[in-house]
Order: sequence, then C-alpha cells, then structure tokens
Amino acid sequence: MGHLLDDLAVIVDTSGILTGNDIGSRYTDTRGHGAAGVPACVLRPTSTAQVSSILKLCNDAGRTVVPQGGMTGLVGGGTPGDGDVVLSLERMNVIEEIDSTGRTMIAEAGVVLETAHDAADDAGFVLPIDLGARGSATLGGLISTNAGGNRVIRYGMTRQSVLGLEVVLADGTVLTSMNRMLKNNAGYDLKQMFIGSEGTLCIVTRCVLRLQPKPLTTSTAFVGMNDFQSVIGFLALLDSRLGGDLGAFEVMWSEYYDFVGERCPTLKPPLPAEHKFYVLTDALGADPDGDKERFEAVLEVAHNQGLIQNGVIAQSDADREGLWAIREGAWEGFRTLGPMFTYDVSMPILTMDGFATRAMVEIEAVFPFATTLILGHLGDGNLHAVVAVGDGSGLAHRKVNDILYGIIRDLGGSVSAEHGIGTEKLDYLSWSRTDAEVEVMRALKRMLDPKGILNPGKVL
Amino acid sequence: MGHLLDDLAVIVDTSGILTGNDIGSRYTDTRGHGAAGVPACVLRPTSTAQVSSILKLCNDAGRTVVPQGGMTGLVGGGTPGDGDVVLSLERMNVIEEIDSTGRTMIAEAGVVLETAHDAADDAGFVLPIDLGARGSATLGGLISTNAGGNRVIRYGMTRQSVLGLEVVLADGTVLTSMNRMLKNNAGYDLKQMFIGSEGTLCIVTRCVLRLQPKPLTTSTAFVGMNDFQSVIGFLALLDSRLGGDLGAFEVMWSEYYDFVGERCPTLKPPLPAEHKFYVLTDALGADPDGDKERFEAVLEVAHNQGLIQNGVIAQSDADREGLWAIREGAWEGFRTLGPMFTYDVSMPILTMDGFATRAMVEIEAVFPFATTLILGHLGDGNLHAVVAVGDGSGLAHRKVNDILYGIIRDLGGSVSAEHGIGTEKLDYLSWSRTDAEVEVMRALKRMLDPKGILNPGKVL
Repeated sequence: MGHLLDDLAVIVDTSGILTGNDIGSRYTDTRGHGAAGVPACVLRPTSTAQVSSILKLCNDAGRTVVPQGGMTGLVGGGTPGDGDVVLSLERMNVIEEIDSTGRTMIAEAGVVLETAHDAADDAGFVLPIDLGARGSATLGGLISTNAGGNRVIRYGMTRQSVLGLEVVLADGTVLTSMNRMLKNNAGYDLKQMFIGSEGTLCIVTRCVLRLQPKPLTTSTAFVGMNDFQSVIGFLALLDSRLGGDLGAFEVMWSEYYDFVGERCPTLKPPLPAEHKFYVLTDALGADPDGDKERFEAVLEVAHNQGLIQNGVIAQSDADREGLWAIREGAWEGFRTLGPMFTYDVSMPILTMDGFATRAMVEIEAVFPFATTLILGHLGDGNLHAVVAVGDGSGLAHRKVNDILYGIIRDLGGSVSAEHGIGTEKLDYLSWSRTDAEVEVMRALKRMLDPKGILNPGKVL
Repeated sequence: MGHLLDDLAVIVDTSGILTGNDIGSRYTDTRGHGAAGVPACVLRPTSTAQVSSILKLCNDAGRTVVPQGGMTGLVGGGTPGDGDVVLSLERMNVIEEIDSTGRTMIAEAGVVLETAHDAADDAGFVLPIDLGARGSATLGGLISTNAGGNRVIRYGMTRQSVLGLEVVLADGTVLTSMNRMLKNNAGYDLKQMFIGSEGTLCIVTRCVLRLQPKPLTTSTAFVGMNDFQSVIGFLALLDSRLGGDLGAFEVMWSEYYDFVGERCPTLKPPLPAEHKFYVLTDALGADPDGDKERFEAVLEVAHNQGLIQNGVIAQSDADREGLWAIREGAWEGFRTLGPMFTYDVSMPILTMDGFATRAMVEIEAVFPFATTLILGHLGDGNLHAVVAVGDGSGLAHRKVNDILYGIIRDLGGSVSAEHGIGTEKLDYLSWSRTDAEVEVMRALKRMLDPKGILNPGKVL
C-alpha cells in the first residue's frame, strides 16, 4: 500500500490526501447507519483528470474506493471499510456555467445543493431538487442516489433534472455525456444507468442540470380530515384544479400530529388534535393576481364536499415556515424517543392506510410499548416511518425491518423510495426486486467494475 | 430453419405465424427509410410466455429477431433483413387495468396509442404521450424509442410516463419490473436502460404507465414575430407566467410558413406572410373561470413588450385544429417537392437560429435549387427539417446528411432528438456521441445479447 499511497499523493498533491489522524470524522460519521472502518486514506481531487488517474491506479492495484458527497444519504452508502480509499468530491465545487436561454446549469459534483440553489436563484431560476439536507448534500451525491425530496410531485426525482453527466468508470475511463438538450435519442441514454447507482458503477464528476422558471407565488394550507378516502379525494381535487401548480402534498397520520403536540414544545400545531389525518399542501403558481383566490376557492370546494374538516392557509412566509416545521422540524420530539429506526418506503397510494394500520398493529404485537409515527410525500406514493421500541440493538432493528419490509413486500412496494439501498437495506433488496432483476444488476456491476473496486458492499 | 420454424409455429399456433406470401406489406414497409429483406417468418405472439419461448429458441439457434410495433418510427428501426424472424407484438393488445387512485395504466406492448388515449379518457385521465402517428404507434414501440411528440414541454418524453416495464431478454429471461410507484430507489432502475434501446437490448411486453389529470381548458395562439431573440423572450415569458400550464411551443421559420401558403391550398394561414418567425402555443389549464383571461393577458404583455407583432387566439376547437394544421398538416405541400429528406435534431436553443441559417446556406451552396424548411418543438430544443434537392438518390441524401449533421456536431447537438437511430442514422451516431460512450453502449449490448440476435444492425 505504501507504494500506492505515494502514487496517489502525487496525483492530488499534499493538500489533497489525508491519512491517519488527519482523517476527520466527516469521512467516517455514519449518523447511526452502520459502522465505518479505518480508511487507508482520503483523497480530495480537484479535477476529473485526477479522479481518472486515481481510479486507474486503484483498479490496477485492486484497491477498493468509496466515493463520498455530503454524507447525508442515511443508508450507509458512503461508509468506508478498513483499508478503503475514500474519494471525496468536496473540492470539485465549481459552478461552471448557467445558460439562461437553455435554462441549464453546468457544475462539478462537489457543489453543495444550497450553493446551487443560490446560483440558480441569482440567475432568475429555480433548481427544483430540494430536501432537508440542502446545506450539506452535494450534486454528485444527489445524482448518485437519485434523491427525492419535497418537490417531486411537481418536478420529479433528481433523475428528471439531470440532462447530462460526466462520470469516471472503475478503470479510469472518462465518460463525458454533457448533453444540454431536453431530447437526445442518439443511442442508449447511458446516464440513466448511472443515476441512482450509489457510486457502485461510476463516480459522477460533473453534470448538466435543468433549471425551472421561478414560481411567482406560493400558497400553503394545513388541513385536517377524518378518513383516508378523503385524503385521496383531496389530492385528486387539487391535482385536477391546480393543474401543474401542485407543489407538495404531505400527509401526517394522527399519531404523528399528536406526538408533535406532546413532545415538541417549540412547534405550534395549527389545528386541534381531533382529526385522523393532516395534510400540508403547497401550490406554486405563476399568477400573482389570481393564485391566492383560486387556491382558497379549491379549499372551499374541498370543504363543501366534506373532504376536509378544518384548515388554515398561510398568510405570510412566517406562517408557511411554521406549517412546514410541523412536517419537518420534529427532531426535538424524536430525541425523547431514545433509539429509533427510520424508514423510507413506497407503495400504491390505495394501500397506504392499510400499510400504516398493519405496521402499527404488527409492531405493537412484538413491542407493546413501541411508538410508530407515519408521515410522508403521499402524492408520490412515498411514506416515512419513525419507529422507537425502547431498544436500539441490531436484533430489535432487524425485527422491525422484517415486519415493515414484509408488509411492503406483500403490497408490491419498495423498501427504498428515495434514499437508496446503501449498506443498510442490502438484505432487503430482494424483497422489492425479483431474482432476475438482481441478476441483471449484478451483470451490470461486473461489466462496468469487473474487479469490484467501486463502493464495495453497497447496493448488491 | 425448417426445424426452427416448426418449433416456433408450435409456440404461437397457426394463427400466430405468417410465412412466404402471407407476410403482408405491414411488416416490410419502411416508408422510404431503407429497404427491407425477406423475413423467414412473422410471429404474432399473444403472451409474454410465448415471447420468452420464441427468444429462447431463436437465441439457441442464433437466429436474428426483429421486433415490430406500429412501424411508424421513420428511421428503419423495425426493418427486417433476409431471413430474420419478425416478432410483431400486435396481438398483445390488452389494457389490463387502470388504477384511478394511483393513476396508472397497465397494458400490453401492442396496444395502439390512440386506444390507450381513449381508455385513459374514459377513466377521467390523460395519457400524455402524443404524436401524429397515434393511430398506429404502439406502446411497446413508443417505449422502445423513448418517443417525444407534442406534449414533451409539459409532460416529458415517453420515459417520464413509464413507471414499470416487463421485458424479455435475448435468452428468453422474463424481467418483470411492473413498478407502480413514482419513487423506487431499490437498486438500479433497470427499465431506464431499456427505454429507448430500439429493440436491441430486449423486447418490451407489458408496461405500467403514469396517467395525468385531464386539463380542463386549452388555450391556443398563433403569433408572428420579427427576430429570434423575440422567440426566445416569448418562450421565457410564457414559461414564467403560465407556470406548469405551458403545453406546446412550436416554432416555424418563415420559409416553412410561406411554403404552406403557396403549396397547401387546403390550409388557411392565419396571419399575413410578413414575419420572420411564427409560433404556435398551447396552454393546458385547470381553471375554466380564469384561464382564458390569463392567457390573453400574457399575450398582451408579449405584444406590449414588442415580442410579438401579430397574432390570433383560437375561439373554438375548430379554430384550434386549423392552427395546428398549419404545423402538422403540410403533407399536400410536401408531396409537390418530389423526393425529400427529413431530419429530427436537437441543439441548445440559443444556437437554433444559427443552425437554420447555416443549414440553408450550406445546402444551397451544393444544391442551388434546394428547398429547406425548418420548424419544430423549440421549447424542447428540438427542430425538424425537411429538405428537397430534386434528387432522391442515396448520394444526395448522404450529402445533405453530412451538411446538417456536421453543423449539429459543431453545436454539440444530437442527430436524433426523438426518433432514434434505427438503421438510418447508424453512420452518424458517433457524430453525437464520443467513442467512449459508443464503447459502453456496445458492452451493454454484448452483455444483454451476447449472440447479437436482437434487432441486428440497428443503433450500433
């Protein structure tokens, strides 16, 4: 290894390599999702050419490489093992160009999402990929995991915002597909194979992202309803009457809402805790003169149809932030739960209420004092669950996994809607994919990374 | 072959196999895009299991198989060679299910697009894939070519409407990934690799498609403008002020508009032929009370800003059809041109006017009496060109190809925006893709179809 380390140091120069005690916790902190080993070194290249040289050397030497972005994927996808070379893209953080006519941004993989947001905003556009970890997540990590987030119902997953990619393959080959067009059917669209491959098929170094016009208005409501059919009916109504403007449709089961009221003293629940379901919804409009009235009119229709029982409409940005905090800011409450397990699953919308009920009953049958909180991006078919059973052991975690993923398997759902497989869901991939699918995934991995040096032990 | 034919006939029974003179022109008509050979037989399976058995037999025997949908791709993607087995999905035409809550349609690959439109409409939704060949194009063909069409600016390419796929691989393996969710990050998203692979990596047998809420209003305008900057400015204005409602933005260069006026006696040009550019635009809205006024107000802003010089707004469906006929119905004029070559290219929007000017100048330098008409889906970065040089020979075709694709290569554009490569653009794939990209495409082909039996001679 001494030899290899010396050669790697020549590629990135001394500022670009960290070894021993200089390797900070940034590179090994799994945020509770598995345990990291001791990496051989951390490399921080500054160019695609450096990434290529690194991979060529490591591939020749059979040395495993773990790529890292902002380390906020929460499934152990960037966790290094003993002796791995960590390859952090953090210094490849240049926004190279914004084309206001074509509405594209060209950027390096290490650009932090919030920085990209700001640059898009300055140019009069919006980069519609958005999620809670915007201050640390990087473009490369978001692309490698096909990240979801809060705006999927309007703008799709990260995949839909990626027009072009530059990646480096395991053997150091640079594959430059920096397409800027919405349409390009010249041969296979290779980038689609790389998006969401969690660093196991290639390392993303640069990208062309699609920007969107800035919404001119945001309307936000928080409503309470009494049954799941009404939640579905309300979504259908908004989707039909708001056209392309629907920007978020987040549902919270009453257990979650009640929990926020009891355990989150800094949050202000906007409605009495008397409903079975609560929905937070945004409309992103383009008509400052008419959007507010139209939004209120649709809510009135929903009320008249008996879909919603009660509700508030944000009258200011502060109101809006307060309503979103109910959905996103419950961490003070979560901390009172002790060890907890989090889930990110998807399923047909019609099966969601059955999923939630079954999950609570089956978990309680094994762990009588369990807390099971369910909420999520209903419009996308995506729910999150937070489960605390008073026991953070691997055994307890596995028991809860088996229960929840077992229900998901029955429903034809996915064990990972947004976050990917990483190391954490390895054992459950086959619960959402057939043997034939997994076999083709393995063949793809063997083809692109025959020595298995890229992010070993993740996904497959 | 006798043996193999007998075995194949057993799989599909006598109604499912055509040989010799029973092979109708449907299976060999290339619509002028290359020449077909004499296929060994045409197979018309009725189930995925039959497709699997067929491919297993053909793969074992090393017999090449050409899958066919509606045969409307216009790049020779379904053209059989001598001795090929043609596999037509036309009898797999069942719409299996529409889920009104999850807004999904499950259908077999041979369903004709218009049939799928009607079924979606009956259920209260819209299937947003739409193009001129809707009466013959099939779902499997649309998916295999990642078809574009008229609604890409609002709903994306076919890829964006595909949630799940069932495909059969070259060796007969059935890969069932009939995902119904908007979000599924459990391992690699294999369907992305198959969409747009033009029958060279697999045969699509079934799909899960995403349906959209029906727009409640359609507003249509046809406007004239004096320079390309105004076209770009008008697009930006509409995109910003119509929010998610913009449904089409089609541009016609004056040469095309003038041509329609002179050579298409059944069409009624709505504006005097005095502008440099003409734009046809649709807004698909959800507010029957306010959409019309909002659309008119945005056009007035465009007029006040000097972006548009003149324009008409459709007052009825008949008006709308008349305006769209200018864009789509110029076939009577094209027939007066004699032999013509058609193009489907994409490029950064900012480079479009330069492309058009250069194309006309360079073609005229070689063919002084050439007619070059340019129009297209400007909002998607996609232009179509119709070129007639009074000579339909292969040599003339190649000369025009070299000119147009040469400009595209200079601009970093794509030789195929929508239609794919097929056989017709084989020689030009490398003009839009790097050697490294083509090499990975070949590796993918070798991995999934090691004997090269699937749609030989297409794409690569």
